[in-house]
Amino acid sequence: MKPAAPLADFARIVQAALAEDLGERGDITTEAIVPAGTGMKAVIRSREDGCIAGVDAIPIVLARFSEPASAQIVAADGTEVRAGDIVATLSGSAQTLLSAERVMLNLVGRLSGIATATAAVVRAVAGTGAAIKDTRKTTPGLRMLEKYAVAVGGGVNHRFGLYDAVLIKDNHIAAAGSVAGAVSRVRARWGDAFPVQVEVDTLAQLEEALAIGVGAVLLDNMAPDVLRRAVAIARGRCHLEASGGITLANVRAVAETGVDSISLGWLTHSARSLDLGLDVG
Amino acid sequence: MKPAAPLADFARIVQAALAEDLGERGDITTEAIVPAGTGMKAVIRSREDGCIAGVDAIPIVLARFSEPASAQIVAADGTEVRAGDIVATLSGSAQTLLSAERVMLNLVGRLSGIATATAAVVRAVAGTGAAIKDTRKTTPGLRMLEKYAVAVGGGVNHRFGLYDAVLIKDNHIAAAGSVAGAVSRVRARWGDAFPVQVEVDTLAQLEEALAIGVGAVLLDNMAPDVLRRAVAIARGRCHLEASGGITLANVRAVAETGVDSISLGWLTHSARSLDLGLDVG
Amino acid sequence: MKPAAPLADFARIVQAALAEDLGERGDITTEAIVPAGTGMKAVIRSREDGCIAGVDAIPIVLARFSEPASAQIVAADGTEVRAGDIVATLSGSAQTLLSAERVMLNLVGRLSGIATATAAVVRAVAGTGAAIKDTRKTTPGLRMLEKYAVAVGGGVNHRFGLYDAVLIKDNHIAAAGSVAGAVSRVRARWGDAFPVQVEVDTLAQLEEALAIGVGAVLLDNMAPDVLRRAVAIARGRCHLEASGGITLANVRAVAETGVDSISLGWLTHSARSLDLGLDVG
Amino acid sequence: MKPAAPLADFARIVQAALAEDLGERGDITTEAIVPAGTGMKAVIRSREDGCIAGVDAIPIVLARFSEPASAQIVAADGTEVRAGDIVATLSGSAQTLLSAERVMLNLVGRLSGIATATAAVVRAVAGTGAAIKDTRKTTPGLRMLEKYAVAVGGGVNHRFGLYDAVLIKDNHIAAAGSVAGAVSRVRARWGDAFPVQVEVDTLAQLEEALAIGVGAVLLDNMAPDVLRRAVAIARGRCHLEASGGITLANVRAVAETGVDSISLGWLTHSARSLDLGLDVG
Amino acid sequence: MKPAAPLADFARIVQAALAEDLGERGDITTEAIVPAGTGMKAVIRSREDGCIAGVDAIPIVLARFSEPASAQIVAADGTEVRAGDIVATLSGSAQTLLSAERVMLNLVGRLSGIATATAAVVRAVAGTGAAIKDTRKTTPGLRMLEKYAVAVGGGVNHRFGLYDAVLIKDNHIAAAGSVAGAVSRVRARWGDAFPVQVEVDTLAQLEEALAIGVGAVLLDNMAPDVLRRAVAIARGRCHLEASGGITLANVRAVAETGVDSISLGWLTHSARSLDLGLDVG
Amino acid sequence: MKPAAPLADFARIVQAALAEDLGERGDITTEAIVPAGTGMKAVIRSREDGCIAGVDAIPIVLARFSEPASAQIVAADGTEVRAGDIVATLSGSAQTLLSAERVMLNLVGRLSGIATATAAVVRAVAGTGAAIKDTRKTTPGLRMLEKYAVAVGGGVNHRFGLYDAVLIKDNHIAAAGSVAGAVSRVRARWGDAFPVQVEVDTLAQLEEALAIGVGAVLLDNMAPDVLRRAVAIARGRCHLEASGGITLANVRAVAETGVDSISLGWLTHSARSLDLGLDVG
Repeated sequence: MKPAAPLADFARIVQAALAEDLGERGDITTEAIVPAGTGMKAVIRSREDGCIAGVDAIPIVLARFSEPASAQIVAADGTEVRAGDIVATLSGSAQTLLSAERVMLNLVGRLSGIATATAAVVRAVAGTGAAIKDTRKTTPGLRMLEKYAVAVGGGVNHRFGLYDAVLIKDNHIAAAGSVAGAVSRVRARWGDAFPVQVEVDTLAQLEEALAIGVGAVLLDNMAPDVLRRAVAIARGRCHLEASGGITLANVRAVAETGVDSISLGWLTHSARSLDLGLDVG
Repeated sequence: MKPAAPLADFARIVQAALAEDLGERGDITTEAIVPAGTGMKAVIRSREDGCIAGVDAIPIVLARFSEPASAQIVAADGTEVRAGDIVATLSGSAQTLLSAERVMLNLVGRLSGIATATAAVVRAVAGTGAAIKDTRKTTPGLRMLEKYAVAVGGGVNHRFGLYDAVLIKDNHIAAAGSVAGAVSRVRARWGDAFPVQVEVDTLAQLEEALAIGVGAVLLDNMAPDVLRRAVAIARGRCHLEASGGITLANVRAVAETGVDSISLGWLTHSARSLDLGLDVG
Repeated sequence: MKPAAPLADFARIVQAALAEDLGERGDITTEAIVPAGTGMKAVIRSREDGCIAGVDAIPIVLARFSEPASAQIVAADGTEVRAGDIVATLSGSAQTLLSAERVMLNLVGRLSGIATATAAVVRAVAGTGAAIKDTRKTTPGLRMLEKYAVAVGGGVNHRFGLYDAVLIKDNHIAAAGSVAGAVSRVRARWGDAFPVQVEVDTLAQLEEALAIGVGAVLLDNMAPDVLRRAVAIARGRCHLEASGGITLANVRAVAETGVDSISLGWLTHSARSLDLGLDVG
Repeated sequence: MKPAAPLADFARIVQAALAEDLGERGDITTEAIVPAGTGMKAVIRSREDGCIAGVDAIPIVLARFSEPASAQIVAADGTEVRAGDIVATLSGSAQTLLSAERVMLNLVGRLSGIATATAAVVRAVAGTGAAIKDTRKTTPGLRMLEKYAVAVGGGVNHRFGLYDAVLIKDNHIAAAGSVAGAVSRVRARWGDAFPVQVEVDTLAQLEEALAIGVGAVLLDNMAPDVLRRAVAIARGRCHLEASGGITLANVRAVAETGVDSISLGWLTHSARSLDLGLDVG
Repeated sequence: MKPAAPLADFARIVQAALAEDLGERGDITTEAIVPAGTGMKAVIRSREDGCIAGVDAIPIVLARFSEPASAQIVAADGTEVRAGDIVATLSGSAQTLLSAERVMLNLVGRLSGIATATAAVVRAVAGTGAAIKDTRKTTPGLRMLEKYAVAVGGGVNHRFGLYDAVLIKDNHIAAAGSVAGAVSRVRARWGDAFPVQVEVDTLAQLEEALAIGVGAVLLDNMAPDVLRRAVAIARGRCHLEASGGITLANVRAVAETGVDSISLGWLTHSARSLDLGLDVG
Repeated sequence: MKPAAPLADFARIVQAALAEDLGERGDITTEAIVPAGTGMKAVIRSREDGCIAGVDAIPIVLARFSEPASAQIVAADGTEVRAGDIVATLSGSAQTLLSAERVMLNLVGRLSGIATATAAVVRAVAGTGAAIKDTRKTTPGLRMLEKYAVAVGGGVNHRFGLYDAVLIKDNHIAAAGSVAGAVSRVRARWGDAFPVQVEVDTLAQLEEALAIGVGAVLLDNMAPDVLRRAVAIARGRCHLEASGGITLANVRAVAETGVDSISLGWLTHSARSLDLGLDVG
């Protein structure tokens, strides 16, 4: 199923991006040079191969200018484009199109970069059954958009924040004295209102988690052979997720261990923007 | 001179980042497991070599939690750290430190990644006299912070938005009919209230700009030998900035052509986060 | 096609509604009587026949409380329910469910009331080909939600505000001296960037509008026989919309004149809320 | 005493209403057709009999436009008008008056509709001594304004939200085990800081409430003869309020039972707007 | 007529004042020492003679705390109190009263200081017929409240900002070439939509203003004998206002020249707060 | 060390001040009289001796106008000026400079007034070793700016609000039964996370505080001879601060008692603005 674009987040980020780019005074170059009323046609084109995400930002940006301009989306979110392909065609006020260009390209470029990276990883593990997940290592303020871009690229969203799922990590285990202690505190406080996952560093901790019926375990920084033993131990009794030190080069080896999912912080914290440009005429 | 940290922008972004990570309900894992009143000591440590930027975010994040925790900054902005070095020591409420961890690391990691990339480029051109500049290709909403990180890394900030300097690009020139026409419209509208730079694609356009006394020119996508001819033509009569297709590998060759500055979009649009972690105890 | 729920508007209105109902101090009755941690199951049930709209508000309201509660939607937007039918089942914190009850019912009740009224009118004109439209006579602050409810009920949205379509009314015509004068000013200012509709009081004005190629005409306060003559005059050359003084009792007679659409202010400005209640257990 | 208009709420709602009607681009029709600087005189006139409420919105709307226009209020809040009566006279910029028209009429029309309905009920019970009250069944975001309109119409405001008075309902009684248990929890938590009312479904519950000295009881969905017995039982020892299933047709019969007050959700949740129009010249 | 308290401005300023005093963490002293649920009675008492203004702030402050406390106003706005007089009696949660004390006293003290200064000046000119006016020299952010305090003290409000009345000063006259030129530009732009006042430095300028029928003149920095000649020249043809260098010591001499009003910046820009204190028990 | 100007607070207050001065309509006088595009040069000059504070506000105000104007600061914060000295030179759009004048002068005048008063007190106690401190008796909404102005004048900031330091006052002591009881509750709740100060009215209470090792004591309303005995009792074991009834006339006598610091509410609650003016040309 196609993920739904988080339009409210687009609107908020577009407003912030326009505020920081235009200030109180606006585009002083275009105002001085391009007469009001001048029309223009242009296209947004990809300068490299990739997976497009975030095109909903384009009409939202244009709608905030007083002189009208409009966009036709050619490559909807999720489209795989080749270098030179058109993403959208634009027409209307030249002032608006020139002043809006950078904010549109910055946002669509960044989200497409994340979708492109995700899609590459998803292709790399094709056929193994492992899902590719994101983390909370997102750009401050852009989490909803970046998680949406991961979904567009074929990834699966992990929890959205500290508030919607329980993830018990080493410091929580230390505070409770044991995996079992931590889990029982969570069950006492919240019942089964939220999904619960436990992060483990060793196979012993995995066995402890299985013994008390934990539904999902995050295997932190384990080599493929250890992961394989974890899969053998779990025998399908819980969801197993691998995390830590996984790159495009080694992700297939990890996926082939039989884990259910693989989470990757760099999809969002170190994404390269997809190179997009605006061509006039 | 050390750049001043944009504290108001830190405060705004920290608020947004905490809102999206904590939601209305907060850190449900830590609340259930770690008793209120539990104390903790921890350090933020770099897991790789790099240049630190953004540590002002750390106390700003901690101050927004009701149970007190405080930070001592060990590596101030601009410090070159090695893998394993401590960036800050933290102490106070364990609940606060665990709930605040990811927001602190995401923000400092991203800004330090930008500062690290900038510092690498600045080192690569050392001795040539060329300044390294950023662009408007920044993350939506984070421009002030990302430009600050570039300054921390030894870079020089280009204009902050469309509102504080004039940059005449190809579409502006087309609208005005010529470089000279565009410049004269700017002078008629704004006098000398703002710095003016003209982007040129050819040496002929450079000569046209020089003829009318333009103070700064951006040389777009020119190979080093063409840049060298541009420097010879300009003979110091205007500031020359190279831009487009410049990487860490070829930036020294560009700098040695004699241009005054080099601007690089990837410092901000494709920065890799610096890997930081929180170690307890 | 099913209309998309305007989630950002739901979020904004829910926040305002909770603020005015809870104040700084919250639900002082429930806090004093119902212990924290008490669980509860409940259903939202319709007390009369109608068309449901706005159920997206239910989880949005619940998510803003710190003690968790969740909802299963039984009757999605657009469902025709009978008195006694369940709209949603709720479970979780009793404090949350009791404190959230009124805000959920007020919002879903109002939007369902609008959808129910719209659906009744749509049924009344079934087979005539006339579309049922809303107006700008909406509750201040709720326009996006109320127009969405009209769409859920099978209606078609007229312009969303003064900014997205041109509607030339009597005072505009007076200012320009004639229908033709008003239209030509609009074309000079905006080209064909926006749809243009002209409101006319007489058949002479309709002919004037047709003569200059206007695409849509609003026929204000005309009796069915006059509308029929208007349809004959227009001969399909423009979209004809009837408006003014139209009720559920006479809407079919209006539709049978052959007009393309009928707009009704009372769908939104005088809607009766659908009677919904919350039943515990 | 005349109720004071909640001017801050007027200002907030007017701002929201103008934002949704004007968007970023404003009134594209009027801007294109009516030259800036054109003056105009107009009146707001009622098209039907009713009680006016909300005229403070008129100057607040006009003040937000840059070209000046002003209003003279003819029918202050609480005035009973006849069809054709003038509510306010307007003069100033034609652009402002035309662009502001709908927002002014929507807000004053809705509030006058509520005041008109309230006044009709108040007249229906004249001489019985029963007060007419509103409920929390108000339009999301408009509660303060709608409760003000009820007061203008001669009604008495019930609590403004969950925060300013205690109302113990069936689910609270169930949670506490009995009426007495619920009341004693409230007294333990809040002392006598807030007024306390108990909703009862049976005369047995009424007696239980009287036995523990409750000051106000809400009699839910009781027929007139049962209400009459409740009045006999209470013998003035507490305030009795009737609620549920009461219409303009049967409200006098309810009032004549001797209850102290009658609360009606439909005054606000299903109010019909009063029909107002703007006439130019 | 008693001026109406600007309640929306009170609410906004109270919110800002509480935010800066409580931060995210609240009153750490009171929270640690005073148990929740402790009750308290207290009074706000004036420590010196003066005129009270701003008591509406007191319940607005208290209403923003979760534990209830309430106030009875003893000295309404405009009351002349003596040292030791009670301004308000407070009762309810001790935590709330102690945490709210400083914000209440700061705001009421400042506004009462302005009202007291104004009342002293009004008394000094009693019988002369001269009105006492404020200026735009108000504390940033507090203008509406400070102008309200002037009105409470018996003063008359000058324009509220640059937007609601025209005041032509020396630099405007210089730009237009003459008083007459400036006035005619104002009449061309705005007609008679706004009151117009001209500031003059000399009697020649006064005559110029009278010649073109200006309705109000501000006589800047003129000695009493010059003011007297101005009054003789004007012969009632326009409103005359004296301003500049006027103190409590010389204000009567100015008033006795026959000017219509006297405006004083120091009423607001250099007001001393009235000394108020909170006494417990 | 020079205090850092709180730029975010400047930005917030400037925005509020411009909003209240310009409204929706702007400076109607200047707009009508001074043609757009007119240039102007001006200076801000002090009309009396004083200590300047708040000049950062000047460029922040100017930057919010669309027609450009800029400032050169001549007297940085902390500069002692004489009557007639220039504080800043301004140039650019005449419209902007005239419309911005009052907001700039109001803010810089007020902060300079506070810095001037503080500097006078600091000079009066020179050589005694006593620090001059502010209090929480600040203008609502301006606390950060006013405390900054105190620091500019050479004062030392006391706590910024109720949230960053513990100050135990008489009512807290009463609630806890004794000084020792109050202090031990604070230590139980907060450990040593915050500095703790105790306000005492008698020397007996001082001894009680010393006995339990309190680090700072506030001596309320004590005459110099009592203060001297307090210093003798404390023998350097804790920080002693005098407060209450201290004026410029008696502050040296207080300082010479040997107390460590003196706090003065009137520095902020009753500051006189420094008289600044804008001179054109």
